[in-house]
This record gives sequence, structure tokens and C-alpha cells, in this order.
Amino acid sequence: MTLTELVRLTLEEDLGPGDVTTRACVSPGARGRARLYAKEPIIVSGQEAAAEVFRQLGCTYSVDVPDGEAAAPGRTIARAEGPSAGLLGAERAALNFLMRLSGVATHTRHVVELAPGLRIVDTRKTTPLLRALEKAAVRHGGGGNHRFGLFDGVMIKDNHIVAAGGITRAVERVRAQVQPLLRVEVEVETLDELDEALAAGADDILLDNMDDTMLAAAVARNAGRARLEVSGGITPERLPVLRALGVHRVSMGGLIHRARWVDLSLRIEG
Amino acid sequence: MTLTELVRLTLEEDLGPGDVTTRACVSPGARGRARLYAKEPIIVSGQEAAAEVFRQLGCTYSVDVPDGEAAAPGRTIARAEGPSAGLLGAERAALNFLMRLSGVATHTRHVVELAPGLRIVDTRKTTPLLRALEKAAVRHGGGGNHRFGLFDGVMIKDNHIVAAGGITRAVERVRAQVQPLLRVEVEVETLDELDEALAAGADDILLDNMDDTMLAAAVARNAGRARLEVSGGITPERLPVLRALGVHRVSMGGLIHRARWVDLSLRIEG
Amino acid sequence: MTLTELVRLTLEEDLGPGDVTTRACVSPGARGRARLYAKEPIIVSGQEAAAEVFRQLGCTYSVDVPDGEAAAPGRTIARAEGPSAGLLGAERAALNFLMRLSGVATHTRHVVELAPGLRIVDTRKTTPLLRALEKAAVRHGGGGNHRFGLFDGVMIKDNHIVAAGGITRAVERVRAQVQPLLRVEVEVETLDELDEALAAGADDILLDNMDDTMLAAAVARNAGRARLEVSGGITPERLPVLRALGVHRVSMGGLIHRARWVDLSLRIEG
Amino acid sequence: MTLTELVRLTLEEDLGPGDVTTRACVSPGARGRARLYAKEPIIVSGQEAAAEVFRQLGCTYSVDVPDGEAAAPGRTIARAEGPSAGLLGAERAALNFLMRLSGVATHTRHVVELAPGLRIVDTRKTTPLLRALEKAAVRHGGGGNHRFGLFDGVMIKDNHIVAAGGITRAVERVRAQVQPLLRVEVEVETLDELDEALAAGADDILLDNMDDTMLAAAVARNAGRARLEVSGGITPERLPVLRALGVHRVSMGGLIHRARWVDLSLRIEG
Amino acid sequence: MTLTELVRLTLEEDLGPGDVTTRACVSPGARGRARLYAKEPIIVSGQEAAAEVFRQLGCTYSVDVPDGEAAAPGRTIARAEGPSAGLLGAERAALNFLMRLSGVATHTRHVVELAPGLRIVDTRKTTPLLRALEKAAVRHGGGGNHRFGLFDGVMIKDNHIVAAGGITRAVERVRAQVQPLLRVEVEVETLDELDEALAAGADDILLDNMDDTMLAAAVARNAGRARLEVSGGITPERLPVLRALGVHRVSMGGLIHRARWVDLSLRIEG
Amino acid sequence: MTLTELVRLTLEEDLGPGDVTTRACVSPGARGRARLYAKEPIIVSGQEAAAEVFRQLGCTYSVDVPDGEAAAPGRTIARAEGPSAGLLGAERAALNFLMRLSGVATHTRHVVELAPGLRIVDTRKTTPLLRALEKAAVRHGGGGNHRFGLFDGVMIKDNHIVAAGGITRAVERVRAQVQPLLRVEVEVETLDELDEALAAGADDILLDNMDDTMLAAAVARNAGRARLEVSGGITPERLPVLRALGVHRVSMGGLIHRARWVDLSLRIEG
Repeated sequence: MTLTELVRLTLEEDLGPGDVTTRACVSPGARGRARLYAKEPIIVSGQEAAAEVFRQLGCTYSVDVPDGEAAAPGRTIARAEGPSAGLLGAERAALNFLMRLSGVATHTRHVVELAPGLRIVDTRKTTPLLRALEKAAVRHGGGGNHRFGLFDGVMIKDNHIVAAGGITRAVERVRAQVQPLLRVEVEVETLDELDEALAAGADDILLDNMDDTMLAAAVARNAGRARLEVSGGITPERLPVLRALGVHRVSMGGLIHRARWVDLSLRIEG
Repeated sequence: MTLTELVRLTLEEDLGPGDVTTRACVSPGARGRARLYAKEPIIVSGQEAAAEVFRQLGCTYSVDVPDGEAAAPGRTIARAEGPSAGLLGAERAALNFLMRLSGVATHTRHVVELAPGLRIVDTRKTTPLLRALEKAAVRHGGGGNHRFGLFDGVMIKDNHIVAAGGITRAVERVRAQVQPLLRVEVEVETLDELDEALAAGADDILLDNMDDTMLAAAVARNAGRARLEVSGGITPERLPVLRALGVHRVSMGGLIHRARWVDLSLRIEG
Repeated sequence: MTLTELVRLTLEEDLGPGDVTTRACVSPGARGRARLYAKEPIIVSGQEAAAEVFRQLGCTYSVDVPDGEAAAPGRTIARAEGPSAGLLGAERAALNFLMRLSGVATHTRHVVELAPGLRIVDTRKTTPLLRALEKAAVRHGGGGNHRFGLFDGVMIKDNHIVAAGGITRAVERVRAQVQPLLRVEVEVETLDELDEALAAGADDILLDNMDDTMLAAAVARNAGRARLEVSGGITPERLPVLRALGVHRVSMGGLIHRARWVDLSLRIEG
Repeated sequence: MTLTELVRLTLEEDLGPGDVTTRACVSPGARGRARLYAKEPIIVSGQEAAAEVFRQLGCTYSVDVPDGEAAAPGRTIARAEGPSAGLLGAERAALNFLMRLSGVATHTRHVVELAPGLRIVDTRKTTPLLRALEKAAVRHGGGGNHRFGLFDGVMIKDNHIVAAGGITRAVERVRAQVQPLLRVEVEVETLDELDEALAAGADDILLDNMDDTMLAAAVARNAGRARLEVSGGITPERLPVLRALGVHRVSMGGLIHRARWVDLSLRIEG
Repeated sequence: MTLTELVRLTLEEDLGPGDVTTRACVSPGARGRARLYAKEPIIVSGQEAAAEVFRQLGCTYSVDVPDGEAAAPGRTIARAEGPSAGLLGAERAALNFLMRLSGVATHTRHVVELAPGLRIVDTRKTTPLLRALEKAAVRHGGGGNHRFGLFDGVMIKDNHIVAAGGITRAVERVRAQVQPLLRVEVEVETLDELDEALAAGADDILLDNMDDTMLAAAVARNAGRARLEVSGGITPERLPVLRALGVHRVSMGGLIHRARWVDLSLRIEG
Repeated sequence: MTLTELVRLTLEEDLGPGDVTTRACVSPGARGRARLYAKEPIIVSGQEAAAEVFRQLGCTYSVDVPDGEAAAPGRTIARAEGPSAGLLGAERAALNFLMRLSGVATHTRHVVELAPGLRIVDTRKTTPLLRALEKAAVRHGGGGNHRFGLFDGVMIKDNHIVAAGGITRAVERVRAQVQPLLRVEVEVETLDELDEALAAGADDILLDNMDDTMLAAAVARNAGRARLEVSGGITPERLPVLRALGVHRVSMGGLIHRARWVDLSLRIEG
């Protein structure tokens, strides 16, 4: 789904057959200006979606604080201008995008600053239909992205291993069939599985739900062969230790699904 | 957008041109069973969306714990059966719906239990394209819904008042033009505005960002004429006082946007 | 469905894979002007749809007689300019919108002038997919709108009453569950039902298929408590009496479904 | 647009985010039966659309009086069965299709019976998006169809003639470019134009807005060469004379756009 | 499907959730120019589709060699300008349209030049969803089009004849029911069938899979009554003979499905 | 786009507002059976698309020769059963899919058999909107797939290199930003570029338009570090030499765009 379509459906959701209050109160020809501003310290994300919301209702939109930059409370992040009915119709939809997405960027920034230099990426635990925007918000916050979906990365999990008849066999089948520009990652829960995955030639290995001691052992056993990813119930507090252990990356679904909305407001002027 | 379409687009988002890992590892004819279970205490919501996800990938889905009921950790909430590739393709999308929506229902239940008997409703601060599902989740949690969008309820806010030339004029214009089955609500911030709204014959009045003292004065001045709604930065802790003040309802955007995802998992068996 | 989409599908219906006559006869670069004019006295409606038809085929469109105003025979109501192929492709679709919708506005104007001051509204008996345009045409003609669909107004009919277990129970269930900005209307056919609906606290009551005598009794019994709506086989001739009876409004499906197309034509010049 | 899509959009128009009255009053598991019956003498049309409406809401639909057959007042034309909420949600949409389309069929039957043996066809003056259904209704009423749109028939009108540089040149250009299975019709308003069209080898000629005397002259002058169509403000009363004149067919937009809705009703039982 | 929609889906196919290489390498604000040029002698087709591809990614597109004209190797056929990311994203999709469609035009030109004056038309053997573009390419190459689909031409084949109960009966049923601007073509395989089709009054007759001798007999027997079409495994070499035989037209699916892609390239400059 | 949607649009393309011949000749209730068979030796592909075509028109479809298997001339590859009108409406669309896709599979099989053991993959030179089906056809023919689009693989080409400021810088930027499961391929045209790409740590290197001598030098210089892909005007004749040179894979757009349609037919029985 393109952003145009996403925004079109979002406006249809809110406006349905028409904004009855505005139709009664606002003269058809009236025009106005609005500014959107932060009500708490945030990292901005969602400007493209907000711009498209206003554009589809006949308004212009200009950005003061671009995606990925910080805004202090009271700071104007964007301005819109156009038909008053358009500004009023766009308000809620635009804010819903900005408050959610800036929330993800702000939370991500907070998390990645706990362990500078450590590569922290998101997962596929995203809000239905907002994945592209939420993954962009993670980048705006300073985090990285993992694969987008089931189509642009191989992740061999327990069910695939059972279906294929073991780790080695699963890696072989994947190597034989998958297009050549995808790396092959295997998810393991024990050191024995790690050994088998390494022997099978996995490019990346996801160490799932291991404590620090086991992770240290895994790093040692890997000896630089595969890239190691740590996942599974990672709290922000653990990040400095994970960085010290020398793993390649940490994946945290919570970058997205534990983010809360930040507070933004729109004021119509003139 | 129908639920069918919402789910179709969600699967397209995750599956794109195909699940490359599963295509390589799982035999085309393989079939299996899966169960979805809670990993913490939750109020369930999202079963219809999850069922549609599995159905679109050729699997059956049967509900153990219906929407609106509680599930303890470990409790199976639903079971799916069908092609193994379908189960694996549906897993993430179904869980993303259930974890988000059960999160809303669970959070709502927690909030409404703080002030039994008080009518607590949601707002239009919802995730783009998930409004119908999130508002259902609020109902599953024991909360109520406010209007769905800009089309099924009149809410006269400051910009409408300015555009129409005062509260009285705004209410008149709305009464003359809007279809007869909609009540007319006016948002006020002061007691003077309250007086004007009452004089204009507003059916409902939204008391925005008032402290308890001012709310008590507003209730007294209203003297049962209009229905009073309280909104604006309501914390759960304030709810018992609001109930004692005798307002008609409280609206809280946070029922939806401050809910966190709850933890659910899917296990494939056989 | 947005107007853009409605018009896109309408053009697809008429043009399909291409206007074969025009492709053969008209040079690709040819441009022209057209004017649309009334061939009988009409109240105009449908200008937005007609404008969109021409716009989608690359033509400009300027309105001479806006929606809601009268045009005498011969009066130019709009002008279009652009590629000749666009003008020819747009002609039928634009006229089909204007002739149908101006027909509704013209018929409505005729009806409402029979009983000035009486509020006369439409119903949900509308042409599939044209409801928003036909309801706008009713407004252009001087009538009012009833609820748009099943989602923006409560109308408790006999089947709901049976399902809920009586009028009182039905009103209670609705009050408890429906969002707060909707009024509750109950349809009744007898004075006993009217009493029960009033006792249950209905906001509006639809008096269905009653003769003038019974209506007078209903108005008396209501004593100003609920708003009374009259419906069911209302002929225009009855309107002055209904006004005299002092009911709140009359709903007539025939504003829309008994309207005939009015005659309009398009002439290409230059 | 397929019928499935047309009905889906029609239900979305009426149901939007949900039937609020039914959701409050009707238990989720309740089921029922309904019958649809005529309230005046009609020729039935629209059964396929009505069936699809019920089907999309989970109900079955069985036809008692198929399209094209007559039903006397009180006659059951179809029965539906399924979830009560589905029956209530389908009622208005199904009736809107049936009342409109049976209206077209009934009106067409009335017209064609005025001049048995005369071929009477519709035009492109149809309700946007309902063309396929309305043209089917004309067939159900005993009329014939003209071309569907601009793509399946060549009709050279005055603007094409001007653009091409005369009737002869227009016919030549069409013959050279258009796919071979389309006949070529030319619209003429005078006998001189008729002569030119005949000389140019037109397959069909539309005699536009001619009185009976001129039509008789045209028939004589044609001498069986082209097929002659009469059009332009034809009243039903003129049909017997037109038949006597021996023209090949008469096209009447009014078969569709002058039809009024007929009266049908749905009763829910059990 | 409109061209806009066709191109939108094509870009979605290639770009999915984003061009990962370009996003990493190209600065957001970078702009550039590109030219598209032929690498072998071609007849150009597909410029409208290519233009739409670039337009949807924010680039302008200007045509140097319009559809239907020849371009020698090295010749620039069009230029694009805009955001560098847009140019890179459009490249493959635009070339896929141009290489395929210019291939059809080039092949058609080659074929029709083998028998100047003979009318050679395409069939319904076209690539799914590209029919309108491929049929336009045939015209650009100098060929003609047959009917577009099953809706704009009558072609009575063996299965229709069996279903209707003979050629005569099939033609009668079609004449009675089909809209009047369609000619009636009958497919025959023997001279007896030809006689029956002529007696039934077929407008056109498709002579299927006949050798030259039989075709000559068919032409003689027809004696100018119906228009004769030859089809079925026609090789280009046979075309001069078919022209000499005096048939009305030859239909060749191979104009489209035997065309190979021609070689075009895009070079980004500046 | 899902296969369901692709087929729906394809049928809309061919059937438009209806199959006029069939509607006139075939009784509504008539049913029949059909078989699809090869008219030359083929490798089958397209069965899923063909099945969906028949399914959408109410017919069943059973496969005799599954995708990827060979069928000799005369061999029945599938059977369909259902309403006669459905069989006739499905025929052309189903054959267009099967003839095109089996053409790709058959051509691929022919090519890969020229150099057994050599990995031969397709490219993004595919027919708009048919990429998923054509890439499946390549697999059915025994070839492999390259990346699907611009989103599931990194391919750094000359324009990216210029934009990023050199090969080394481009690889660095990609490594820093792209999701971790994508390999990084660099396209080079000279041995110096090869050296730089190797030094930059490219995972895969595309050797573009090199002759055998240069390829041999490239293989030697690579010394097993990166995986080497050969591309650019590869003729089937060169494949044995390329295999002997020890490159990792060869990519050939011609697997898809040089394939011709194979001949299949449908016969209706009973």
C-alpha cells in the first residue's frame, strides 16, 4: 500500500460521508493557517504522512523540524495553510500519525543512547499497515531495521527446522532455492544448536532468550564465523552488557510496540 | 475498509511476494495445528481479525476465549489448523492484531475498574485504520465508545465557534442543518462559556481541562440541563473523584493510545 | 467511496477500453469548448460531480449556476474547455450526474414550497452508491437530510423491538451501548406504542402510516416531550395539514426516488 | 466493476462502521427468516444484486419470482435466511436495488406493449455505475439494449462530423481504424444528411428529432439500404405510428430514466 | 484498469517497501537527468506508459520519438528529469514497458510490410492486463485491431453453434438479442459451414485453418456477400498469397505473442 | 497484487460488461466439461493462475500435469467443469496465462540443460504485473530466481557508485543502513573495479559484459572471496564455457523475455 492510499483510507475512516460540524459552522470559502507544535520533548517522525493528510484535503504543509530531529516543548514542527474545512478535517488524522510515529522515534532514541555503538534493530512486531512508517520512525530515532517481512530475509526458526528435518538440511534447502542476495539466519536456543548452525554455514545466528553467561559462551564458540544477533525479552538495562559481549546486533520488538504516543497539538490561526 | 480488506493488506505487508524461508523448508502438502496462548493475564480482543488472517491463508480458526473475557497466563485462547505454510504465514499478523487489541482491552479493564459505575469512553485518538478494532477493544474491556468520526456526532470546538461567530450562532447553524438524530455537543473551557452553551440549548457539553473545583461549579450551574462530559489530561487516579462529582461521562484518549501490547504466543504442534 | 473514485468508475463504465468513434474522427491535438445548459426550468445540483468528470479527462470546468440555484431554459449552467476527445468522453457521464441530481433538487424544491416552514427530510431510499450526492441534492432543493446510514443514528423498528423484548428494553439497551452523541428514535404504529416509547424516554418518535386524526392525537399525547416525525406514504398534498398539526418533521423517500431526470444538454463550440 | 464490488460498496455506504441499532438490540447469535414481496403489480428485476447483498452479510437467498416475470401485489418474490443482524443490514440495500430495477423493468414492459413487434432499445442515459443492471432490467421488461458504452459501437455525431471534415470523411476514417466487428451508425437531422450518410455507406442511421412526415420521407429515401433508428423525445404515444412507418428500431432513454421506483417490502419472520 | 492504476501496481511490484540500494547511496535531495535510447532499429511504442512511470515517481518525461515512429540504434527516444531516486526507481519498469511494446510494434511493422495493402489484425491472444497497450502497439506498427474482448464483437464458434442448435439458429438468437451496433461473425472450417453461415446472413465469416485452395473456393462461393477473415496458423510467408486471394482481412495472434523484446537502454547523466 | 486480484482484473479485461455471443447462444443453466491439452512438447507452468480463472467463473479445475512437469503433444494437462458460459468465458484468459508461462518454463528448461550444474537465474526484466508468475515459471523450468525487486537485494550499480562517491563509500553506506539479512552485490565492468569491490568487502560481484578471457582473470583475482555473477548479453551457447570458468551464477533476462508462447488448446466436451 502506498502512502497515498494509506492516507486516503485514514481520512475515509475519520471523515466518512462528511464532517457534519464543520459543514454547518464554516463557510465554504473560508481559509486559514495552522501550526503543529510539540508539548513535550520529542524526536519528530511522521512528517511525510502528515503532509499527505493535509495535501489530500487541499492544504499546503511546510516542515519546520524534519523527521529525525529533536523538538523542545512549544516548538513549531510544521505549518499548514488552506481551506478552513480542510485544516479541521486533517487535524486528528495528522496528529494521530505524528503522535504515534514521533513516539516510536523518541522511544528509540532513548533506548539507543543507552548503549552507543551497539546496533539495535526492530522486528516484525509492528502495527498492521503501519510497518513502513514505524520502521522509518525507528531509523529517525537512531535505530536500525531488521528485515521488512517474510520476503526479504531468511530466518530459519524451529518450525522450519522440524519441517526440513534438522538445521543442516534446512540451510541446504534454503541455499538451493532462495534468491542469491539473501543471507541465511538461523534461530537457536542452545549451544548445541549454535554448533550445528555454524557447521551448516549459517550467515547469521539469532541467539534467542539466552542469559549473559550463555551469550558469552556463544560469542566465544562462534569465533567470528557468523554474525550473532541477540533477541528475546531484552530490557534496555541489559544493553551495555550486550555491547560489551561483542554481539553483532540486538533486535527489540519493543522499540516499536512499547513506545507510547507523545503529545503534540495543532492550533488554527487566522 | 472492511475487515477482509484490512487483513488482506496486512498479509500483503508481511508476505509481499512470498515467505521465502517457508517455501524452501516446508513441503507444499504439509499440514499442522497451532494454538495461541496468553503469556500474562489479559482481556482478550482481536479474535475476529485473527480468525480472518488464518482464514485468508486457508486455515480454520476456533476460539477458546472470546473477546471480552479474561485469560490467565498459559491459557489457550484459540486454535488454528491447516497448511503448515499458512500457519507460519499467519502467525505474526495474527499476533500483531491480538497483542495490540488485547492490550487495549486489558488496559481499559484496568482503568474502568478504578471507578465502577462511571461511564468512561474513548476518543478519536486511534491508530490509523484500526479505529473500528480499537473501539471494539475498548468495549471488550468494559469501556464505552464516543462518536466514531467526524460524521456521526456534532462536537462544536473553539474553531467552529470562531467561524460561526459565537456559541449561540454555532448551535443554531448546526440545529438547522444537521440530520435530526445527532445530539449537539459544545466544548467549553470556562464557566462563562458553559453558561452560553447551556443558554444555546446544547445537548452535551464537554468540560475541557478543568480542575475538580471548577468541575464542581460546572455541575452545579448545569443543574441537570445538559449532559456533562469531562476530558483533557485525565489520569486514572482522578476517576473516583470525577465519579463523585456526578458528571455524565469521562473521555480518555489514553484508553487506546496509552495501552501497551500484551504478550501472546503461538505454538505449532504436529 | 470518494467522489474521485465514483467518477473514475463511472468513466470506466462508459469509456471502457476507449471511445472508438472519437479516436477515429478527432485529431489527438484538437481542443474545444463546451457549454452545458438547461432545457427546462431547474434547480441545479451535481456541479461537483460534473466538474470531476471533466477534470479526470483533462478539461477545465467553470460553474455559471451553482448548486442550489435556479436556471431557466436556455441558461448556461457551466462551461468546459480542453481536449476535444475529453469533452466528448465526458459529455454523457457529466449529463447523467447533472440530469439525475438536478432532478432531485428540482423535485425537492417543488415539494418543500408546498408547506413553507415545515421540515421535510429524505430517507435511506437512495440509489446505490449515489447517496451522498442525492442527499446533497435534497439540501440544494431546500429539503433536509435524515441520518446517512445505519451508523449515524438510532432508529428502533419493530424487528429491533421484538429482538430486544419490548420498547422499554430496546431503548435501555441502546442507551447503554451506543455512543453518546446519537439521539434515539423509536418507530411506532399505535398510540399505545407511542406511550411506551415516551415512557422509555425516546428522544424522537417516528409515527408510521398514521392518518391525520391519529396524528393529532399523537401530538396531543406527546405534549412536547419527544420530537415527532411523520412518515409512510406521505403525498405532497398532505404537507400543509401536517405542518398545521405541529409535528417536528416529515420524512419522504419520494424526494429522491420519485424525482425524474430533468433535461440538460451540452453543446460543443469551436 | 463486478457485481460483487458494486454490492460491497453499497453495503459500505449504508453500514459504514456498523449498524448501531442492531448491535445494541439483537443478540449476536440470533437468526431469522425474511420474505420480500410486491406491494403493487411489477415485473421483477434485480434478483442477482439482491442475492449478493444478502450473501455478503452471511444470509442465503432463494428466488420465488425470477427476473423478467410478473408479480401481483402480495406475491413473495424471494426469501432470505441467516443471522438476524445480516437480514436487517441487508434490507434497505436489497430493496433499493429491487425497487429501482423492477421499476425499470415494469416501465419498459408497459412501453413495449404499446407497440408489439417494434424493437425498442435503451440509450446511455443511465444511472452512474448501474448501467449493467439497468440494461438488464430493460431486457427483463422486454426491451432491447443499444450499445453499452463508447467502446462497443460507433456512433458518428455532429461533433465527430465537424472534427473529421464531413460525413463521408468521418465514415472513411472510422472504417479504416475501427475493429472490424463494429457497425457504423451516423446521426442525421436532415434528409440531405441522410443522403450523404447513405452515400458514405453507413450501416445504421439515427434519425434525430424528426416528425412523422420527415420520417416517412427518410424511410422512402433509404429504400432498405441502411438500418434506420429513430430517437429524440419519443413519447410512448408515438410508438404505434413509428412501427407503422417501418423503421428498424426506436431508442428511448426514458425506458430507464423515466421509470419510477416500484413498491416492495421485506418482512422478517421468526 | 486505467493506465494510472496499471503503472501504480507495476511500481509496487518492483519497489515494494522501498529501493534499499538507492536509499542508502543517493542523497534525498539529489536530482538528475536521464535519456532512453534504442540499441537496435525499432518502431517505438509504450511512451505513454513510460511517461506515467516517471510521472508517478516525481519526474518529468519528454518524448523525442513518438509511438509509431522508427528509431535507429543510438537514437534518444525520450528524456526524463527529476529526483535521482525517482529516475533509478523508474528505470526498470519503464524499460520493461518500452522493450515489450516496441517489440510488438517492430514485429508488426515487419509483418505488415510483407503484404502492403492487406489488412492484418491481432487477436485476443494477449498478455494478461496489457491488452490495451499491446493492441495500441499493433496499431503503432501498422497493423489493425480485432475486437477488444468478448463484449464488443460477436464471434460465433463451434461451441456456440452446438449450444444454439446449428449455425442458422445461433445467428438468429444473436440477431434478436445483441445490441444493434455489433456485426455478427461466424467461424467455419468447411465449405458447407460457409454456405450455411452465408445463408444465415452472417456479416463476417472467419475461415479457420484452411489451405490456399480451399480459401480460393471460399472466396468464390462467398461472391462478395460476407466479409471474409482468414485465421489459424498463418505464417508471414503466406501473406502475399492471402492478399492475392482477395480476402478482407487476416488475423494473427503472433503479431503480439511472437514478438520478442527489443533492446533499449537508459543512461543517467549529471 | 494477489493472484485473486490479478485474475479478477484479467477477466474484467476480456469480459467487460459481458460475453455477448455466449449470452445469446448458451442457455443459462447449461453445463459442460473441458480439457486443456498441449499441442507441442512443453514444460507446464501457470496451473494456479488457470485454476483461479475457472474458479472465479464458477467452474472446478483439476490438474493432470502439474507445474514443472513435461507434457507431450496431445497430453491433457487439466480438466475443467461447470457452467458452459463459465467455460467459454475462462478459455482465452486461462490459455493466455498457460501459453505464456509454459513458454517461459519450456524455454528455461531448454537453456539450463545446456549446462547442467551451472546456476542460471532470471532478472527483473519481466512483464509488468506478471513477475511473480514468470519467476515461478523459471523455477518450474529448472532455473533459479534472482532478487524479486529493488527491495529484497542490494545491487550497487554505476549510478549508485557515482552518487555515493566511489565503490568503497557505497558499500560502507549500504552496510550501515540496510537491514542485516541482505547481501551486498556490486556491479563492475573492469578488473580495477573488481579489485575495489573486493577490497570494500562486497558479498557478491556482478561481472557485466566481460568476455571469457576477462572472466577468467576475474575468477583468478577473486580467489574465492566474493561470489561471482556473470551477466550481460549471455547467449545460451556460452553457458558451457561459463560453467567451466567456475563462476557462481549466470543471470539471463532472456529466460523470461526471449521465451515464446507455446501452443495449448481447450476443447469443450459434452
